[in-house]
Amino acid sequence: MKSEMTVISAKDTPSPTGPYVQALEGAGLIFVSGQLPIRSDEAGLRQQDFAAQVQQALANVFAIVRAGGSAPDRILKVTAFIVGLDHAAQFNSVYAEAFGTHRPTRSLVTVPQLPNGHLVEIEAIALK
Amino acid sequence: MKSEMTVISAKDTPSPTGPYVQALEGAGLIFVSGQLPIRSDEAGLRQQDFAAQVQQALANVFAIVRAGGSAPDRILKVTAFIVGLDHAAQFNSVYAEAFGTHRPTRSLVTVPQLPNGHLVEIEAIALK
Amino acid sequence: MKSEMTVISAKDTPSPTGPYVQALEGAGLIFVSGQLPIRSDEAGLRQQDFAAQVQQALANVFAIVRAGGSAPDRILKVTAFIVGLDHAAQFNSVYAEAFGTHRPTRSLVTVPQLPNGHLVEIEAIALK
Repeated sequence: MKSEMTVISAKDTPSPTGPYVQALEGAGLIFVSGQLPIRSDEAGLRQQDFAAQVQQALANVFAIVRAGGSAPDRILKVTAFIVGLDHAAQFNSVYAEAFGTHRPTRSLVTVPQLPNGHLVEIEAIALK
Repeated sequence: MKSEMTVISAKDTPSPTGPYVQALEGAGLIFVSGQLPIRSDEAGLRQQDFAAQVQQALANVFAIVRAGGSAPDRILKVTAFIVGLDHAAQFNSVYAEAFGTHRPTRSLVTVPQLPNGHLVEIEAIALK
Repeated sequence: MKSEMTVISAKDTPSPTGPYVQALEGAGLIFVSGQLPIRSDEAGLRQQDFAAQVQQALANVFAIVRAGGSAPDRILKVTAFIVGLDHAAQFNSVYAEAFGTHRPTRSLVTVPQLPNGHLVEIEAIALK
């Protein structure tokens, strides 16, 4: 018998803007799609400062893992995509405060551009 | 006893162009190497239009997950690398049509360049 | 009961330079954070040639998976981030020699820049 896959959908988080779901659970893991700094009212934060964008993208990731029955401190891996390295120190500061004592594994990846001029996108893999 | 790892190799898909395998299965998951828009006759499609490149890269991913005993609708996570955001809407259109009703989690990542001038590369993680 | 997550920390490898751990084990997998070409004495190798940088980043990955009770030949997936494609052939050569007969799945991703002028960063997922 095939193992099961479960679609996870969080309230109060932005709907996917393309052909993907917020998260899927399978093999004991929760895969969270790349989250842009968009609020649940669908307002993008590209005109806000970088710190606010990181906070919002992480808030989306956290809400989604909670909706899947997991928690931020059960996130195993984060991949964060940022435009330019200028904000790296600020990214680490906001990110560390959001995670508290938990430290997932991470890659911080620079990209040429993100949709709609946003500066950060964050994806994650959590333990169910 | 250590859990097992299985090498997956699909017929009618391009051979790896470097030191990697098409896919490996382990821990209930199938990891598919980034697939360029290359046909099984090893012809690259960089001179074809973007839509054709997306179709071919996805066809390679789908053939590989099937060869591993999984299926396109059991793909949990896709990471798609594209050169520039200009093609994002077209990417979504071709991608959605290829997947049908299934919607994996996804990050769409822009990169400065891809091998041999290709415009898209797609990797995936599927549930066995 | 929730499944467990284990923090992995290798001796003789560089300490994380930000809010992340070297590796975490969960769901039968070991997730290794992106490794830069930094030695355990924290000296960066950005002034060394590209081949030396690839060797060091891989050595860090290998030491970390071994510290987690796994091994280089149990790595399922590698994502390598490099600045520019000029070094791709050299990357493949050094990489293939380091892995020997084992061939993980892989995506080789170009990025605009990496921290401190380094030219390569390598992350991995291994089977426990």
